[in-house]
Amino acid sequence: MTINDVHTKQRASTSIRLSPDGPAAILRAETAPTWDAAVGHRFVTELFAGTLEDSVMGKYLIQDYQFFESFLSMLGACGAHTDVIGPKLRFAKQLGVLEADEDSYFVTAFAEVGVPVGEHDAPDLSAATARFRDLMDEAVASASYPDLLIVLVIAEWLYLDWGEREDPMPRRHIHAGWIDLHRGDDFRAWVQFLVDELERVFPTGDDAESVADRDRLTHLWQRTVDVELAFFDEAYVPD
Amino acid sequence: MTINDVHTKQRASTSIRLSPDGPAAILRAETAPTWDAAVGHRFVTELFAGTLEDSVMGKYLIQDYQFFESFLSMLGACGAHTDVIGPKLRFAKQLGVLEADEDSYFVTAFAEVGVPVGEHDAPDLSAATARFRDLMDEAVASASYPDLLIVLVIAEWLYLDWGEREDPMPRRHIHAGWIDLHRGDDFRAWVQFLVDELERVFPTGDDAESVADRDRLTHLWQRTVDVELAFFDEAYVPD
Repeated sequence: MTINDVHTKQRASTSIRLSPDGPAAILRAETAPTWDAAVGHRFVTELFAGTLEDSVMGKYLIQDYQFFESFLSMLGACGAHTDVIGPKLRFAKQLGVLEADEDSYFVTAFAEVGVPVGEHDAPDLSAATARFRDLMDEAVASASYPDLLIVLVIAEWLYLDWGEREDPMPRRHIHAGWIDLHRGDDFRAWVQFLVDELERVFPTGDDAESVADRDRLTHLWQRTVDVELAFFDEAYVPD
Repeated sequence: MTINDVHTKQRASTSIRLSPDGPAAILRAETAPTWDAAVGHRFVTELFAGTLEDSVMGKYLIQDYQFFESFLSMLGACGAHTDVIGPKLRFAKQLGVLEADEDSYFVTAFAEVGVPVGEHDAPDLSAATARFRDLMDEAVASASYPDLLIVLVIAEWLYLDWGEREDPMPRRHIHAGWIDLHRGDDFRAWVQFLVDELERVFPTGDDAESVADRDRLTHLWQRTVDVELAFFDEAYVPD
């Protein structure tokens, strides 16, 4: 076993195809400790084991639900600002899917963990939720397709990576349903599309503008991965 | 018969519900001569009569097809920049519908009037097409929901108004299909939604910013209605 094997072994695996020296592989490798801490988080382990406390799951879902609106905005902005018709149509399709299937998991899940209707509509935002929403809203306001993609790629890819963990599946719908939303051929194809788009538009030039753009995007990537980990942590912080 | 009746009689009718003194009614009334000239245009009359030359229809459709991409961008931007979840979902739904039904009319229609594949992909833009695309792209770049709505309301409402003309329907698919796309309950509900949104967000204050916004939006409305009329005219200009 070489050093390289050890290194590979310690990392969370992914089913996403990457150019080995492409920006997505590099960004992910640079944030591997945080990324892998999120994928291997106690929350995910307990979710798969079916041992997650309802109070933790409820708290997590209430906060996650607060992203739905900003997430729709990000997809709309991607459709508006991507430069090519194919991706424009892909975002249009995804928005149609989200609209049609809007709340189905959440409605059942909130009932299952006893979150009353109304309590999930406008809760106090946790610090991580507020930071994440700010990141999304800044990306929308930037009108920059690469910035939007950075946030979106992480939000979806990191969830695919934990969703595809090879643990046995839990029994209860609230647990299994949340995992099923983040695995499978359709979701993987969606994440692959996002990653491919990021690789396509990531700035590669040596001019000052490209360098500055790369720095900004790299910093945004790091901030977003940090928030993902913090978001899992916060589900365990007592009120 | 009063002056008012005469005035009403000369105007194109609409099935859209309006607040009588609301911004949509006022904007439409201020541009009534141009609006009505578009709705009553020779192109529309010949379309319903089924007497439109294939060369005119082909030329018109090739140019119209060039808006599809900018139109998707406008819907995405509306979804990104509207402030409320309901409308955000409505734009998401419409994008899903457009993606699913993308080209069906155009593919058949181009074949019917003998436009070879490829010729409709990147034709020389007519002056009106270029102006219209600029208007759409400026609205997307503005990231302003009211600006986006102005262009979108006209693009859809003016087409509903001519689509609902009470002339008998023509026989050929290329004519009847284009009319059917711009009438009916679903299309009317979509236009009503857009008009209601414009009324909801149109600035009404007396402060300098509201006044400046109103002036800008009114000017944009006038430019857009002008382009709609010019677009019909240009279908008859020989190459």
